[in-house]
Amino acid sequence: MATVYLRIAMSLDGYVAGPNQSVNDPIGVGGMRLHEWVFPLRVWREMHGMEGGEDDASSQVLQEASERVGATVMGRHMFGGPSGPWDLDAPWNGWWGENPPYHHPVFVLTHHARAPLVMEGGTTFTFVTDGIESALEQAKRAAGDKAVWIAGGADIARQYLRAGLVDEMELNLVPTLLGDGERLFDGVGDDLHGLRLVRTVAAPNVTHLKLARG
Amino acid sequence: MATVYLRIAMSLDGYVAGPNQSVNDPIGVGGMRLHEWVFPLRVWREMHGMEGGEDDASSQVLQEASERVGATVMGRHMFGGPSGPWDLDAPWNGWWGENPPYHHPVFVLTHHARAPLVMEGGTTFTFVTDGIESALEQAKRAAGDKAVWIAGGADIARQYLRAGLVDEMELNLVPTLLGDGERLFDGVGDDLHGLRLVRTVAAPNVTHLKLARG
Repeated sequence: MATVYLRIAMSLDGYVAGPNQSVNDPIGVGGMRLHEWVFPLRVWREMHGMEGGEDDASSQVLQEASERVGATVMGRHMFGGPSGPWDLDAPWNGWWGENPPYHHPVFVLTHHARAPLVMEGGTTFTFVTDGIESALEQAKRAAGDKAVWIAGGADIARQYLRAGLVDEMELNLVPTLLGDGERLFDGVGDDLHGLRLVRTVAAPNVTHLKLARG
Repeated sequence: MATVYLRIAMSLDGYVAGPNQSVNDPIGVGGMRLHEWVFPLRVWREMHGMEGGEDDASSQVLQEASERVGATVMGRHMFGGPSGPWDLDAPWNGWWGENPPYHHPVFVLTHHARAPLVMEGGTTFTFVTDGIESALEQAKRAAGDKAVWIAGGADIARQYLRAGLVDEMELNLVPTLLGDGERLFDGVGDDLHGLRLVRTVAAPNVTHLKLARG
């Protein structure tokens, strides 16, 4: 059965997005600081069709994360576009252009039905309107032996955490404060459903904490 | 000039104490889970006059932290005792018995004046009523070439962080959720005043993140 894997970047004060999120700024004020460690990496640049880049202790974490994933689940805000029903005359097809960096099936949780979207390079977006368990079932079937990545945003991550459906969690902990925004663990309670720290990787500007069951 | 050093244990969801703190339970419900990693350690047991114990990657962090400190600043709640003015007929002399594990001058922030308290083994408690900067000045003078440890609790740590008076911060990050209680960074804003991650130590049940200036 496919492992359900939550990987998300979080500040020292627990935020995964900054304040004043909007359609045009889905990670909020200062939220980009959570991701600065990733942009110089060769492996990240390759995923996004760019040359060059650096290697550091984060490279292997990211490479491993990328290779293990067979399907992704994300929320509507992470997929983006105007809120409300889809405007199919001027469709929003995600932030990533014609060839998104997923290259596998992506399941987008939304309240508004829409036909699947087939992109270049193996990425398909399937829109799921009947809840997190249905999205996960579909993603598991699509992932086969590989893992399902719960990609975010915060609200989606929290729903899966609360339901105890996360088998592994990788926190990319960034040594910065956002001071406001969306906290990963707000309302999650005090139960990690058996997740324990199994690996810590120290890297420039980020610490990778991996938690798993057992 | 003495380095000002904040060392405090924090949960993954950012709490340094659990909910429902009281005079008899100053670290709140579940708060003891933040400290479980320390109790088996030989170096911690030695500090508290006990024999035996284990060594792991936390040992050196704790040893180093202990050796570098020449004076400590703490809040009234961490020192303990009934709230309000001191009852000098039945004085509260701290949680630690006749020979506290500090063995150096300790400055306790309080609203209620009290004469200094000289304990066995080199620990003195001086009660400071004129604010965090005064307590820090006194502690720096007492520490000489050694560091001043801002020991907590959360409210005291936050006041020093907000004022930009912390030169180094060591977070003992414990992979657990408390779900409620006192957050270290609540109201601290988004400014770490130049503190950057300089060292990560992976240890059983805790990750030590050291931040320093420059």
